[in-house]
Amino acid sequence: MDDRITEFALIDYLRSRAGGSDRLRTGIGDDAAITLPGGATATSVDAVVDGIHFRREWCSAGDIAHKAVATALSDLAAMAAEPGEIYVTLGAPPAIGRRYLEALADGLAAAATRFGVVLAGGDTVASPQLFLSVTVVGHAAGPEGFLLRSGASPGEIVAVTGSFGGAAAGLWLLKNGAGAAADGMDEARVNDLIGRQLRPEPRLEAGRLLGLAGARAMIDVSDGLEADLRHLATASRVGIEIDALQVPVQVGVPEVAAEAGLEAPGLVFAGGEDFELAVTLAESDIDRAGEALATVDLALTPIGKVTAGTGVMVRGDAGPIEVPPGHDHLA
Amino acid sequence: MDDRITEFALIDYLRSRAGGSDRLRTGIGDDAAITLPGGATATSVDAVVDGIHFRREWCSAGDIAHKAVATALSDLAAMAAEPGEIYVTLGAPPAIGRRYLEALADGLAAAATRFGVVLAGGDTVASPQLFLSVTVVGHAAGPEGFLLRSGASPGEIVAVTGSFGGAAAGLWLLKNGAGAAADGMDEARVNDLIGRQLRPEPRLEAGRLLGLAGARAMIDVSDGLEADLRHLATASRVGIEIDALQVPVQVGVPEVAAEAGLEAPGLVFAGGEDFELAVTLAESDIDRAGEALATVDLALTPIGKVTAGTGVMVRGDAGPIEVPPGHDHLA
Repeated sequence: MDDRITEFALIDYLRSRAGGSDRLRTGIGDDAAITLPGGATATSVDAVVDGIHFRREWCSAGDIAHKAVATALSDLAAMAAEPGEIYVTLGAPPAIGRRYLEALADGLAAAATRFGVVLAGGDTVASPQLFLSVTVVGHAAGPEGFLLRSGASPGEIVAVTGSFGGAAAGLWLLKNGAGAAADGMDEARVNDLIGRQLRPEPRLEAGRLLGLAGARAMIDVSDGLEADLRHLATASRVGIEIDALQVPVQVGVPEVAAEAGLEAPGLVFAGGEDFELAVTLAESDIDRAGEALATVDLALTPIGKVTAGTGVMVRGDAGPIEVPPGHDHLA
Repeated sequence: MDDRITEFALIDYLRSRAGGSDRLRTGIGDDAAITLPGGATATSVDAVVDGIHFRREWCSAGDIAHKAVATALSDLAAMAAEPGEIYVTLGAPPAIGRRYLEALADGLAAAATRFGVVLAGGDTVASPQLFLSVTVVGHAAGPEGFLLRSGASPGEIVAVTGSFGGAAAGLWLLKNGAGAAADGMDEARVNDLIGRQLRPEPRLEAGRLLGLAGARAMIDVSDGLEADLRHLATASRVGIEIDALQVPVQVGVPEVAAEAGLEAPGLVFAGGEDFELAVTLAESDIDRAGEALATVDLALTPIGKVTAGTGVMVRGDAGPIEVPPGHDHLA
């Protein structure tokens, strides 16, 4: 068939778009890629599956490739790592066609260029369901160059980058049609919310700047703000108290929540996929960190504090509030 | 439900079995694993998908985990790398049940222990189809410590480890029932062939010994002997001539081929999945390399030579023979 592509033709196509770097000695085309890290490395893996993390009818091949790379790199952002290489497993139904696979490859190359990483290797396999698994490798001069989840101490301020709820609101708009948006929401705002779901931005530069500004512990918000703060609290053996009214909500989210018959806090605290960073800092470092993030046009907002307790408590204007649980990726 | 396991419970379970190493600073439980490679690294990715690379009705969760790790590590064996860490993406149908996922986790841990690697991280996602994608990272003092596909020169000898055809014969027995085996094949022999399909052994130690013994180019035989030698010939810009009669055939393969109505060369040259190593060596290094492999109870068999031509020519007793093409993993 004209519209088929063999494994090796696809690998050649990927290789032609893969680029290189000082660290990479051999990339796609041997049994393994060879790198000279010259320091400590941070490695993480993230996968997206058709029908679970995206639907092909909602988004382009480029969107899927972008999101797969971006969500994987978000873990490196949360380590304050310098991104290096990515390795991609592509599982594709045999009937999917050459043009779609080339568009995925183009999307991977575009995402790699955009985020400053090299596509250094991977695997292509037949699979009944389209999936992408992305391994990301980042670097630092030494292990102390990375920011862990476990570094928080009582008395520190909890702060977040950017705003929340947009990715979940965008998902609702994709599922229900953008026409379902509340009256008076203009198209640009609707597109911003949908873009938040389809084209997340890993906060790589922000992560490194927060590391330099004295951040003590950091995590990226993928499962939901409350769930991810709980992971940070558990790793640091501390408690966290959040003031719900301080959490920055993306413009348009309350309108979508109202239209969806949901409470905005559901989208903001449990929606997940905003890929912002949550960080703890000494109070004396907050201003400096905020100024550093301003250089990359990103807000840093204090939303609570680290306590000597356990778990995460979210306070509304009338005391503690319950927020829905975040994602269980196996459910 | 009793038989369900949450993502985080499964990750805790994996972490409890993951082990550690001198190179690994933080493993499962943060946004990324941190390692201090202290030299050059080799990284490769391999995936297996239910219904494509295995069938759950043919094999246990332990078999699947073993094969996923072993096939990924085979790429490191072909680089003569010292294996270091593995990162696993597990895609699992939500209905698959706690016991099965724990058995997969146990199998991953058992394979890691057996092959001397550390399970340092990964991702668990819901997927309609069970799949495992395994990223392997190996190490060497420097880039020259790795053996590439591209180092072969005309005049060198082409040799292979072990024997061929067993994995393909084992697959035929799994598909057709062991009772379909030829009369007179005893159960142990049938089990050897099936084991060759279900529990391949990456030739990690052999790969390193061949590197020390002066090997010039190396590849692991996953797609089929002829196809993989073609990859090596292309990467080295040389030709390869093979004497079909010299290729070591696993005991029992001719009998299964006869029963299957296939020619044995089809299983031997194109069956794939034997995960032996094919290597080129100066003629003067062959004896030393063979003696080195004898220390790990593995045969090294010269099967042909590197020429100044292109492509791979297989000679039978009456001149060149055609062998079927190897696997296209997207077909």
